[in-house]
Amino acid sequence: MKSYKSMSKEELETLKSELEKEYNDFKAQGLKLDMSRGKPSEEQLDLSMEMMDILSSHDDLRCSTGVDCRNYGVLDGIPEAKELLGAMCEVDADKIIIYGNSSLNVMYDTVARAMTHGVLGSTPWGKLDKVKFLCPVPGYDRHFAITEFFGIEMINIPMTMEGPDMDLVEKYVSEDPAVKGIWCVPKYSNPQGISYSDETVRRFARLKPAAKDFRLFWDNAYSVHHLYDDDQDVVLEILEECEKAGNPDMVYKFTSTSKISFPGSGIAAIATSKNNLEEIKKQLFIQTIGHDKLNQLRHVRFFKDIDGIHAHMRKHAAILRPKFEAVIDILEAELGGLEIGSWIKPKGGYFISFDSMDGCAKAIVAKAKEAGVVMTGAGATYPYGKDPHDSNIRIAPSFPTLDELKLAAKLFTVCVKLVSVEKLLEQA
Amino acid sequence: MKSYKSMSKEELETLKSELEKEYNDFKAQGLKLDMSRGKPSEEQLDLSMEMMDILSSHDDLRCSTGVDCRNYGVLDGIPEAKELLGAMCEVDADKIIIYGNSSLNVMYDTVARAMTHGVLGSTPWGKLDKVKFLCPVPGYDRHFAITEFFGIEMINIPMTMEGPDMDLVEKYVSEDPAVKGIWCVPKYSNPQGISYSDETVRRFARLKPAAKDFRLFWDNAYSVHHLYDDDQDVVLEILEECEKAGNPDMVYKFTSTSKISFPGSGIAAIATSKNNLEEIKKQLFIQTIGHDKLNQLRHVRFFKDIDGIHAHMRKHAAILRPKFEAVIDILEAELGGLEIGSWIKPKGGYFISFDSMDGCAKAIVAKAKEAGVVMTGAGATYPYGKDPHDSNIRIAPSFPTLDELKLAAKLFTVCVKLVSVEKLLEQA
Repeated sequence: MKSYKSMSKEELETLKSELEKEYNDFKAQGLKLDMSRGKPSEEQLDLSMEMMDILSSHDDLRCSTGVDCRNYGVLDGIPEAKELLGAMCEVDADKIIIYGNSSLNVMYDTVARAMTHGVLGSTPWGKLDKVKFLCPVPGYDRHFAITEFFGIEMINIPMTMEGPDMDLVEKYVSEDPAVKGIWCVPKYSNPQGISYSDETVRRFARLKPAAKDFRLFWDNAYSVHHLYDDDQDVVLEILEECEKAGNPDMVYKFTSTSKISFPGSGIAAIATSKNNLEEIKKQLFIQTIGHDKLNQLRHVRFFKDIDGIHAHMRKHAAILRPKFEAVIDILEAELGGLEIGSWIKPKGGYFISFDSMDGCAKAIVAKAKEAGVVMTGAGATYPYGKDPHDSNIRIAPSFPTLDELKLAAKLFTVCVKLVSVEKLLEQA
Repeated sequence: MKSYKSMSKEELETLKSELEKEYNDFKAQGLKLDMSRGKPSEEQLDLSMEMMDILSSHDDLRCSTGVDCRNYGVLDGIPEAKELLGAMCEVDADKIIIYGNSSLNVMYDTVARAMTHGVLGSTPWGKLDKVKFLCPVPGYDRHFAITEFFGIEMINIPMTMEGPDMDLVEKYVSEDPAVKGIWCVPKYSNPQGISYSDETVRRFARLKPAAKDFRLFWDNAYSVHHLYDDDQDVVLEILEECEKAGNPDMVYKFTSTSKISFPGSGIAAIATSKNNLEEIKKQLFIQTIGHDKLNQLRHVRFFKDIDGIHAHMRKHAAILRPKFEAVIDILEAELGGLEIGSWIKPKGGYFISFDSMDGCAKAIVAKAKEAGVVMTGAGATYPYGKDPHDSNIRIAPSFPTLDELKLAAKLFTVCVKLVSVEKLLEQA
């Protein structure tokens, strides 16, 4: 296809009216589709329905140590749940604390605790004049929302195909003691689906932070969320790498079953060093008598072990793969060669990241919305909602049906074309 | 029975050797009983076992508004759960946010939020030189643990049979802007089982705080936890009273189903004014995508409505009543008239509060422990674990079987007698 950039003004004008017609035809269909959040579809939720029957009134509801899971107690999780989420995290069960239904909440609590109590004896971050976090971009809006809520200054770190720009990370972390953390989604990153290379992980582990309470906030959200059986990313285990590098306490690793079992009713966990675990448990002991052990037991009895989880994730992949491929195919068919956008074909995770020409993302998302397709707000993948290039758009293909998705993706490409043509005409 | 205080030294010496023999006989039995925490017994947990079957893989798992409870979403709880816990709280559903499995966690979060973000625009408490809480004593150790964890200075307020000493409360709250809150258990208080009188509640509602961000932390832990059908305490509804008094935003009311369904796997809630709810939801939106809606649905479908909860609580009462009465009977039979201790017979809640002679509580609890009966640590019912009189002991009759409990209560009275005799001999 002919690149839009090589078109004459006249060609662009003609194209524009064609695209406007195409767009208006879509609009006339009165679509109502949601591609905004990484939400599993009903079909995916149905995969876990047997979990609803796994604990019955006739079952023994004690965990492996004999504790009655119906009653109070067990602050950090039942042993078999630690085993299971430990295996998912690739760490030993004794490095795990099991939480409630949301890893986001664990991350929030982890930042909140540092704000009020510091980290391993450091000054509480809330008492400091300035606290900064590095934010690989594009990234996850809810990470940025936590740091913004606590008044933490966020610094953009561009992503590369290997992970965050480590030259920049090293510079900031080693030179600025106000830099206390970095948000990382190391595998199938949100939204690009990039997995950190071994070299990236090793450079993270070997950081020499100016702040001794600097921490990696390592959100292992998509550790087992592959799309393919035969082509899966493997990311080096960060706790082990940090230990080897003499930085054993530098990382908090988060995980949950949210996109494995039921998103609102899963179990979450943190994996970290002995020192960090001890500190966290001191706070946890004040905060709660314990999390929902019946739900922990429900998950363990349903999945049994890590093999059970992998088998289950293959079922998710069978549903998700055609959706991801449909979007990629439509992007390639409709936009390939036009030089008005780029995207990455992910091998796992929940998103496809699209980059439009500079200054077009907001307009594209607005146009899609006007025609009934809700996407993640443009800018959301950047701290403060400010994409300096106004170009990144996160596509979430999981929730709509395949047919809806194809329609939405097609409309999306029309919006991209139309907005790009308008932009080029402005510049012509 | 003859008062110990009227005994001669010789009588006390004789008594002492008799009691030592009795105590050693107990010790020889090698008891292993736990009366330390307000933990429901297995028999009580069994009452809710059908809840394990109430949601099955064949059920429609959508809530009343059609939302799929298996997926993400619904920040503040499904409508029917708000109805149910609202009824339990005696407030409208629109004044409720449903949380996760623990009201303790809600209280912790409420204090933590005030520390980092203030209350309705006030200076974050963490930025102030001094923050103080009033603590009616004896009270709940986990309340005190939260305020201590955040470095909040705690001020003892003696309890009367009508509730906290309101003269003192009014004085502190109206004069000292550093006083930001008070911990209250208004019904069947922990540990005394005292319910606040109408006058007490009205005086609370009419407070004129020096700090505009002063809040009542109103822990409605035992709102439906009566022991008797025909003799139940009623406490005035505090949100309504505060509204009437022109203090609509002054109260956070907490509740949960912890001692109704399963302690680790219940649902919790906060009830408060529109202004406060709005502020809380802003934070909640950052902290989580939503709490466990399946567990909310499970509770609603099991209990159906407030009548279902009352019917269920009568079953709990049938199990708890004989236990409470057994302890009270033994205290009366063994200690009545001896002038070495006093106690209150509660009509609900989870505890019996015992007051020994000054300076004896620690020794009594230690003696009981030595003979195999674990009680709540002496001092635990006071901030910083410091009972200025060393006299209050919290007895938790719920967990042991009735037979075990009788044995434990008998041993307890022997310990009380022995320690009291020793104390009187010291003073003689």
